[in-house]
Amino acid sequence: MSLPFTLLIDPVAVESERSTFDDTFHEVDSAAPALRVGELSTQRGDGIFETLSVVNGHPHEVEPHISRLSNSAQICDLPAPNPAQWRAAIAYAVTRLPHQGELALKFVLSRGVESGPAPTAWLHATRAADFSAVRQNGVRVVTLDRGYPRGVAERAPWLLMGAKTLSYAINMAALREAHHRGADDTIFLTTDGYVMEGPTSSVILRAGGVYVTPAPSGAILHGTTQQSLFEYLVARGEKVEYRDVTVDELRHADAAWLVSSVRLAVAVTTLDGEPMNTDAQLTDAFNAYLLGRTH
Amino acid sequence: MSLPFTLLIDPVAVESERSTFDDTFHEVDSAAPALRVGELSTQRGDGIFETLSVVNGHPHEVEPHISRLSNSAQICDLPAPNPAQWRAAIAYAVTRLPHQGELALKFVLSRGVESGPAPTAWLHATRAADFSAVRQNGVRVVTLDRGYPRGVAERAPWLLMGAKTLSYAINMAALREAHHRGADDTIFLTTDGYVMEGPTSSVILRAGGVYVTPAPSGAILHGTTQQSLFEYLVARGEKVEYRDVTVDELRHADAAWLVSSVRLAVAVTTLDGEPMNTDAQLTDAFNAYLLGRTH
Repeated sequence: MSLPFTLLIDPVAVESERSTFDDTFHEVDSAAPALRVGELSTQRGDGIFETLSVVNGHPHEVEPHISRLSNSAQICDLPAPNPAQWRAAIAYAVTRLPHQGELALKFVLSRGVESGPAPTAWLHATRAADFSAVRQNGVRVVTLDRGYPRGVAERAPWLLMGAKTLSYAINMAALREAHHRGADDTIFLTTDGYVMEGPTSSVILRAGGVYVTPAPSGAILHGTTQQSLFEYLVARGEKVEYRDVTVDELRHADAAWLVSSVRLAVAVTTLDGEPMNTDAQLTDAFNAYLLGRTH
Repeated sequence: MSLPFTLLIDPVAVESERSTFDDTFHEVDSAAPALRVGELSTQRGDGIFETLSVVNGHPHEVEPHISRLSNSAQICDLPAPNPAQWRAAIAYAVTRLPHQGELALKFVLSRGVESGPAPTAWLHATRAADFSAVRQNGVRVVTLDRGYPRGVAERAPWLLMGAKTLSYAINMAALREAHHRGADDTIFLTTDGYVMEGPTSSVILRAGGVYVTPAPSGAILHGTTQQSLFEYLVARGEKVEYRDVTVDELRHADAAWLVSSVRLAVAVTTLDGEPMNTDAQLTDAFNAYLLGRTH
């Protein structure tokens, strides 16, 4: 039950196989080497991942995460994951993890060792950072140009937009740029000024009483936490909408949030140095809902 | 002397340190795990690399590769590599490698283990694939949109263009797309139709008797093999030029090559299905020169 916790999945089953997954999971010491340097995940950032939260023993949004992993695999020409194997691996990991507090459970499908016969896969769980203050106080956000015009994802699928790949160097650099600018996080814009997403989060805003997130397209990851919050809002009788959002609309929103699996919902308190409207009560309600989920 | 050969560098020295690098290199079994799953190279593609060729015991272009690694480190806010340590590591590796034939020697600087104190670094040598046929016969190339307009690298340095990062998933996807289209390789274009580079190579063309490569800028890696070939051409009294190149100019070139450290110079025989002019004698001369280098 010690953290970090690491589980190698070997062999990796693909969708068409009906393996019972006996002897598939190998718990390994997280402090010890587990991957070969020939791994394409490390040589080429060539693999995909998901990160879900486990709160008081409940893994959140398992099916949407597995489904998005399958979608990423398809975009990247990786073998189609076998959902049953991933479900089993996550369930096994959860039995081995502390049943109190918040954890981040990352699961990875790599193309494997260069010239190797099969993909590599593993789960890695860590205790989540303490996000209570940022959930309370929000984040200062700067907008950054993602360099791509709107519509490029559909024309150029080899750019792998919409896949959650391990090639996150730009996402990490954008966060460093935000910190250089005295902010906490960033929202990517298209070169023509449309809101995309954060490097590790989705954007939700409230405009004219409607909750809006940028239209899912080839260019944006479909956020699992955003979807969960939209379900919550719809159940409360609120209106939700997927559509294009310009940066000007974001600037003048009633409120805006960055939402992600482990940090959950955080209010955008400033955008490029200008104060934003916030709704502290609603942010609290979002996080209470997200933390209270039992699946 | 067996291949693959793997050398871990630990601890990693930074530029300002004057370590003598005692006990810095650890040869490890390439078939055994050497990296932790918490490695940011594997979690985030967050690191940089270089690949040089070793031909009959001679490592090629060591200084340009180390210099480019330093440039990549600067773009990525990584600790400045200590060139003396990398020189020593490469030299040590070469003493341990076969002194016959062609090898690929990759060296990597990763941001290290998540929340860890220091970067991770290693060298990994493999026998090069047999490129004799492709050096003779050339490659069929398709152009692919890289999604970025010209000039974006200067406006948006967080896109890390010009750094050779481990986040190569798009480069690998572009090669798969080329194969889907019945080609062998690809040349990236800006959205406005300017020639950039291949996913793992530089582009050289001959137009009006002058050898041209796209102007080095924030958007394009400065190719070590391209620079070596330009030195060779200048020494033979040829004219070389760095400037913007449109895809139309490329289509109508006298000849064009993709050049890279290990595959060396290969002629572009078709571009988007249309035959290109080639110069077999010159391609042979390029490769004879590149293979014959002693440093």
